[in-house]
Amino acid sequence: MRTYYCGHLQSAHVGETVTLFGWVDRRRDHGGVIFVDLRDRSGTAQIVSDPERTPKSYQIAADLRNEYVVKVTGRVSKRPPESLNPRIPTGEIEIYADEIELLNSVRKQLPFQVSTAEEEPVREDLRLKYRYLDLRRERMSRNLQLRHTVVKTLRRYLEDKAGFIEVETPILTKSTPEGARDYLVPSRVNPGEFFALPQSPQLFKQLLMVSGVDRYYQITRCFRDEDLRADRQPEFTQLDMEMSFMSQAEIFDLNEAMLVHLFQAVKGIDLPRPFPRLTYAEALDRYGTDKPDTRFALELVNVSDLMKDSGFKVFSGAVATGGIVKVLPIPGGNEAISNVRIKPGGDLFNEAATMGAKGLAYIRVRDNGEIDTIGAIKDNLSEAQKQELLQRTGAVPGHLLLFGAGETAVVNKTLDRLRQVIGKELGLIDPNQVNLLWVTDFPMFEWNSDEKRLEAIHHPFTAPHPDDLDDLKTARAQTYDLVYNGYEIVSGSLRIYQPEIQQQVLEIIGLSLEEAHRKFGFLLEAFEYGAPPHGGLAYGLDRLVMLLAGEESIRDVIAFPKTQQARCLLTNAPSRVDNRQLKELYVASTYQPKP
Amino acid sequence: MRTYYCGHLQSAHVGETVTLFGWVDRRRDHGGVIFVDLRDRSGTAQIVSDPERTPKSYQIAADLRNEYVVKVTGRVSKRPPESLNPRIPTGEIEIYADEIELLNSVRKQLPFQVSTAEEEPVREDLRLKYRYLDLRRERMSRNLQLRHTVVKTLRRYLEDKAGFIEVETPILTKSTPEGARDYLVPSRVNPGEFFALPQSPQLFKQLLMVSGVDRYYQITRCFRDEDLRADRQPEFTQLDMEMSFMSQAEIFDLNEAMLVHLFQAVKGIDLPRPFPRLTYAEALDRYGTDKPDTRFALELVNVSDLMKDSGFKVFSGAVATGGIVKVLPIPGGNEAISNVRIKPGGDLFNEAATMGAKGLAYIRVRDNGEIDTIGAIKDNLSEAQKQELLQRTGAVPGHLLLFGAGETAVVNKTLDRLRQVIGKELGLIDPNQVNLLWVTDFPMFEWNSDEKRLEAIHHPFTAPHPDDLDDLKTARAQTYDLVYNGYEIVSGSLRIYQPEIQQQVLEIIGLSLEEAHRKFGFLLEAFEYGAPPHGGLAYGLDRLVMLLAGEESIRDVIAFPKTQQARCLLTNAPSRVDNRQLKELYVASTYQPKP
Repeated sequence: MRTYYCGHLQSAHVGETVTLFGWVDRRRDHGGVIFVDLRDRSGTAQIVSDPERTPKSYQIAADLRNEYVVKVTGRVSKRPPESLNPRIPTGEIEIYADEIELLNSVRKQLPFQVSTAEEEPVREDLRLKYRYLDLRRERMSRNLQLRHTVVKTLRRYLEDKAGFIEVETPILTKSTPEGARDYLVPSRVNPGEFFALPQSPQLFKQLLMVSGVDRYYQITRCFRDEDLRADRQPEFTQLDMEMSFMSQAEIFDLNEAMLVHLFQAVKGIDLPRPFPRLTYAEALDRYGTDKPDTRFALELVNVSDLMKDSGFKVFSGAVATGGIVKVLPIPGGNEAISNVRIKPGGDLFNEAATMGAKGLAYIRVRDNGEIDTIGAIKDNLSEAQKQELLQRTGAVPGHLLLFGAGETAVVNKTLDRLRQVIGKELGLIDPNQVNLLWVTDFPMFEWNSDEKRLEAIHHPFTAPHPDDLDDLKTARAQTYDLVYNGYEIVSGSLRIYQPEIQQQVLEIIGLSLEEAHRKFGFLLEAFEYGAPPHGGLAYGLDRLVMLLAGEESIRDVIAFPKTQQARCLLTNAPSRVDNRQLKELYVASTYQPKP
Repeated sequence: MRTYYCGHLQSAHVGETVTLFGWVDRRRDHGGVIFVDLRDRSGTAQIVSDPERTPKSYQIAADLRNEYVVKVTGRVSKRPPESLNPRIPTGEIEIYADEIELLNSVRKQLPFQVSTAEEEPVREDLRLKYRYLDLRRERMSRNLQLRHTVVKTLRRYLEDKAGFIEVETPILTKSTPEGARDYLVPSRVNPGEFFALPQSPQLFKQLLMVSGVDRYYQITRCFRDEDLRADRQPEFTQLDMEMSFMSQAEIFDLNEAMLVHLFQAVKGIDLPRPFPRLTYAEALDRYGTDKPDTRFALELVNVSDLMKDSGFKVFSGAVATGGIVKVLPIPGGNEAISNVRIKPGGDLFNEAATMGAKGLAYIRVRDNGEIDTIGAIKDNLSEAQKQELLQRTGAVPGHLLLFGAGETAVVNKTLDRLRQVIGKELGLIDPNQVNLLWVTDFPMFEWNSDEKRLEAIHHPFTAPHPDDLDDLKTARAQTYDLVYNGYEIVSGSLRIYQPEIQQQVLEIIGLSLEEAHRKFGFLLEAFEYGAPPHGGLAYGLDRLVMLLAGEESIRDVIAFPKTQQARCLLTNAPSRVDNRQLKELYVASTYQPKP
């Protein structure tokens, strides 16, 4: 029976006889004395065997190889002064192995080094194919344990401090309202019919509020058969919450308290409260995005009014056709960023171009407030306009002003992108800083030009802002996202709970009464029987853990993730199946591989 | 903002002004004074309004109807002595409603009464269709809260007392080893290929052991597209555990300690330890089943040796053809059970017949050890045989001895069934008693006469008993089930961790090397890189909670269950889907409804 985990042994255990289990992280032979770093999930401990002191274990120790599985029994000793290792927690002790039992060996060449001492970079496809070896490595073991701690901490906060009840909702369910990208599951016992895997438990959590559950949470898997995008997974995990009878302010308060607790518990950071808030309109205005990284300034400045009558047609034309002109002022940008990078072919030009911009106008601010730019801009800027521009953008000598002009969405996307690239390049971002920001009051609807109809930005159950009930089409919604260093980690809203308003919203997005009732008539009907005011939110748990772990891909905080091609390299899922199996399910594959 | 839940108000709050939210459970008009029982998930509190003391709220109170949603603000008062209600926790107080705000009304006729005071039995299909109303009812609200408490208690025990880490395993994965009854999910981005939903996380949890996770748990959804059987669900929840480097005795110890803690926490019961153990062979011998309800005796007695030479051909013939003769001795059975019930057409005869028995022989033991039975038995029983029979079965005057004779499996199933029916009828079962029993050492394989091959009883990763390695085909497995009052709630085993033994087992169940590698070659390969000894188990959580709740169907402890026809009556899933959706997934339905 194990007495300790390897990584927990300390000087206090000196003299004890202990039994350890684990893997051979490394084995060294120092002239007849064998040293083995024995590893388990807690860390490593040094095992020693020599022919004099531990004759019984010596031959076995000599034959050990990396990743062999062993049981070791021996006495904990203080290391001699010259072998102390302050870099590991067990660096003061070693274990003289009275007995070593070989439990399992390695029969094949390891595809990569597992040892914690090696920091060999390994190709991700190899790591995913041999995930069981990858997870033995220190970084991944730490990430899995961090994920567990995060989940545990959140659960306990909700249960103990906030009265939430965990309720499981179905995985085999019905197509979600805006049903594209649902995974479907043929039913064998109900031939010709299909379940859908949930994109979120949205309808069920609202029904739980109608059921009087009052405060619900669930850490649950959600599914989206999306086109392949960077760092998305076909299945992902949400911390899903819904609560009745709470205002938006109360919901913010509860979540802020929970996050302060979480960051204290897992990062030792004290987050200041309340978290900053921006409306969607403000966020777009100042940062060009609804998920700004506010760890650095570099705020955008709208100068449309200043440029609307400019002789420089790129600017005035943008405003005249309903677009905007905005500036990204970069302190010290004159030094840091050359013209070559901004002009066609340059890296910043290319960044802008991928966002749809046709070019990048710029002004360099020199000593004495002189400006340096292409003639067409300079010639069309009066002294008063110039002064106003410098004043509004806070520009002083050394500033570079980058201009976006054109369609509002394109300008915002372009300058947001440049702001991020340049912020990183200029070292404006403190990687240890944590900025959490609520972004509120998204519009209810946006125009889908493909389908020529308004569609719900959040989802069609989002409550409109009480001040905007007169014209729902242009109304703000009672939504809130939480942004963590530029990543959206929470999305939520207050919900509609009156059937009349729900009906209006469904009409606006062009759902016929008949179609709405076929798809989620049960929710509309539930609202007839006394639905409480309610609201909720969902945390993207994979992304939250990724940020807390300092990783750059959610695949590094998921035990068995899929690739961007939605494949599991370990099990080789998805795969072809027997026709017999399909026949039993009353389906056939219609896929014709191209010859 | 809510100050209290309704059910938490007590005399200590008298004099406070409180704000409550909830549903109108009942409203009574006592000659101009309105009483409202206001309900939330914690219980009810009595709201009072009259034109004198609370003029502002009176008209609203008068207009309230059952299940309206309201916010109430008022002063907590002591009830006058004549209205004290000791049956509810809030029975000493009432709230004079200074203000009532109507938050939502009921617009349709309720399909059934929700009120906690009504105990109207409601048809299950109605309850499932209007689940959101059903869940408001006291019984279901209590069941959901119990489920939450059970899950919370188990999680915390594993995390805090036993060092388990929760790891999420994929839902979109690969067909499981014995792949029938998998739900399949077509992949849109990998046309022609399919994911499968897991019947259990078996392969992944073993891989996590190879990964060094050491102690893993997960509360996870599993899926089985089974033929429709009583009280099974297409999706169900398991507490799934796997651990490395632990013996069976250590695994028992850990789980017993956890269950003792659980029963203490949720039922206030102290379970004695260690839990009793029976081998599979003993369980079948004594009870005819591998999941005996040991709350009552009525043990079976094997009398094959005694009857093998009997002139009564039913008995001797059974033994001669490889079968058995067993007795179910029933103390007091002479009084309680008439001949009519045992003979063809009787209820006990019918029970036996549904289990495959052709008839029921019996002996009634009279005063002075006389026996009373059909001639053919009596005539063929010597005095010595009779005495031996009475002695072995412990029969005394008043006993009824029921005989099963024939094929072993049929005899066992028949007498197990009769034992349960008669045990219940004779009131031998204390409904408050909790018997937990380990059943161990199941055989590795059983003969599948349809497919004419041996198949794994547990699953093909189960380790054989170390004493039985010489002949794996007849070996016992290192398996263990935990039986709770006759229900299997846990199933587990030590696993194979050496590729050589795994290979042998796969050969025995007739899997070709090629097929095995195609299906789970990744697990076989993982075993090549240093797999630790490991074992695990899974709790059927729905069933455990059902038993703890005193319910008879798992549907009563699942928020949104499916019917026995695998349908959700609330959402009407599964359902037909657009052909466009199927086309995108590269599948077609082949179902042809019969005209």
